[in-house]
Amino acid sequence: MTVFGGIESGGTKWECAVGTGPDDERSATTIPTTTPEETIGRVVDFFLREGPVDALGIGSFGPIDARIGSPTWGYVTTTPKPGWSNTDVGQEIRRRLGVPVAFDTDVNAAALGEHRWGAGRGLRSLWYVTVGTGIGGGAIVDGRLLHGLSHPEFGHLRVPHDRDADPFDGSCPYHGDCLEGLASGTALEARWGTPASALEDAAAWALEARYLALGFVAVVAVLSPQRIVVGGGVGRSPGLLPLVRRELSALMNGYLGFELPDDYLTPPALGGRSGVLGAIALAESAD
Amino acid sequence: MTVFGGIESGGTKWECAVGTGPDDERSATTIPTTTPEETIGRVVDFFLREGPVDALGIGSFGPIDARIGSPTWGYVTTTPKPGWSNTDVGQEIRRRLGVPVAFDTDVNAAALGEHRWGAGRGLRSLWYVTVGTGIGGGAIVDGRLLHGLSHPEFGHLRVPHDRDADPFDGSCPYHGDCLEGLASGTALEARWGTPASALEDAAAWALEARYLALGFVAVVAVLSPQRIVVGGGVGRSPGLLPLVRRELSALMNGYLGFELPDDYLTPPALGGRSGVLGAIALAESAD
Repeated sequence: MTVFGGIESGGTKWECAVGTGPDDERSATTIPTTTPEETIGRVVDFFLREGPVDALGIGSFGPIDARIGSPTWGYVTTTPKPGWSNTDVGQEIRRRLGVPVAFDTDVNAAALGEHRWGAGRGLRSLWYVTVGTGIGGGAIVDGRLLHGLSHPEFGHLRVPHDRDADPFDGSCPYHGDCLEGLASGTALEARWGTPASALEDAAAWALEARYLALGFVAVVAVLSPQRIVVGGGVGRSPGLLPLVRRELSALMNGYLGFELPDDYLTPPALGGRSGVLGAIALAESAD
Repeated sequence: MTVFGGIESGGTKWECAVGTGPDDERSATTIPTTTPEETIGRVVDFFLREGPVDALGIGSFGPIDARIGSPTWGYVTTTPKPGWSNTDVGQEIRRRLGVPVAFDTDVNAAALGEHRWGAGRGLRSLWYVTVGTGIGGGAIVDGRLLHGLSHPEFGHLRVPHDRDADPFDGSCPYHGDCLEGLASGTALEARWGTPASALEDAAAWALEARYLALGFVAVVAVLSPQRIVVGGGVGRSPGLLPLVRRELSALMNGYLGFELPDDYLTPPALGGRSGVLGAIALAESAD
């Protein structure tokens, strides 16, 4: 029987698992993100020890090169994370494990995981967003992962920023006050001096909900998904989704001619496992 | 042999054609938009006279209800256009012509037309945007029209609006300063007191290019299409696309890790016929 490996690689940790799905996770581990050499070495060791696996899926932090046939396919590209810019991940792991590897964004993997086994089961289209250290999005359209010129880079769209109400310049090194620069965990901590997990000011959360809703208006306006799954450490903060839901409805202002369903914004059914399980699903299409 | 009818219905005129594609347009007419009764009556007469057609495609101004199975499928819904709110178009025409009808947005029809016969041939994904009286967008993903919860409503996403530089409140009756409210032909004429076709002020066009580029950043961030086709009376203004291209590149700021292709923004290859020809292509899937 075929057994897959899944990796959700993040800026702080890499989740690795061996199995075929949420009811068949045979082995799993979490490896802290240090240098590329050390991190990838420990990941390879895990799969050599717990495997063999027949194929591997990687859902990676980004931006990445996932263009099949590109010489830098499998690379993490222009990430601001120190030491990781232009780093070969996919080709290196493929060479060292000697198995087919599928390489995509962490959020595309999570979208696939939620579509296969979670909050998106049976839906034709789905948007998965993570709001954590950064902000990213991935999509299922007609039951398949969305790919185009590249992959979505949801965090970097621009939203209205009222500098009188919110004089914070934004935390994105590329764009300043893009959505990620205003509403990521990094932005919250820089603006308020408190990590999101300890932030209790209602006005701070109202502003956060406003920015996320402005981002979701763009998702509805461009992609019109059947559901939006909101994950990530900040995205799963208690009480946040109802605030965002209200703002989103106010911003749409009845224009669609029907109300968005009550569960239009929903937490991931797989909790923090959407990404690594989605990476296992991704492995099915590895070549 | 099968013959199709195509309708691009707009707020000022309806384009109707009989044929199978751009090299086989057997008959065509333009009917001014007056009341629903009169307009639909003249359209039905055209197809009765020039047909029979085996199936009909309609690409309609919106917003519309294109949800198969909905009791108001085929309706123009919450349009601000006087007399047309909640108007049955698709069911009425289907009943009076007695043929299968496919009903979608005008921009989805145009996206399909450009993908089949125009600037999107051979591409996996494509975004078509019209900038005219209003602003709308439609998409091809994996070779098929994008549908989800509803259809894209591109004009109504929010973009940064610097009221010091541009004190204009925006012209959208639903949202004020959404993209359509700031950058449509209606907005241009309201802001500058001059129709777009007569607008020569370089600063006005620089502002227009900025808003459109901000909208396209959202398209790239959410959908990542392989190409964006820019149609519509304002969208096809001479010299506009290079300005938008430059702004878009500046806004992305190298984040993708590669430059957007030079022809990433391109005019429709079918000119003003993308919509009605796309409606003919749409008719193939009518039922």
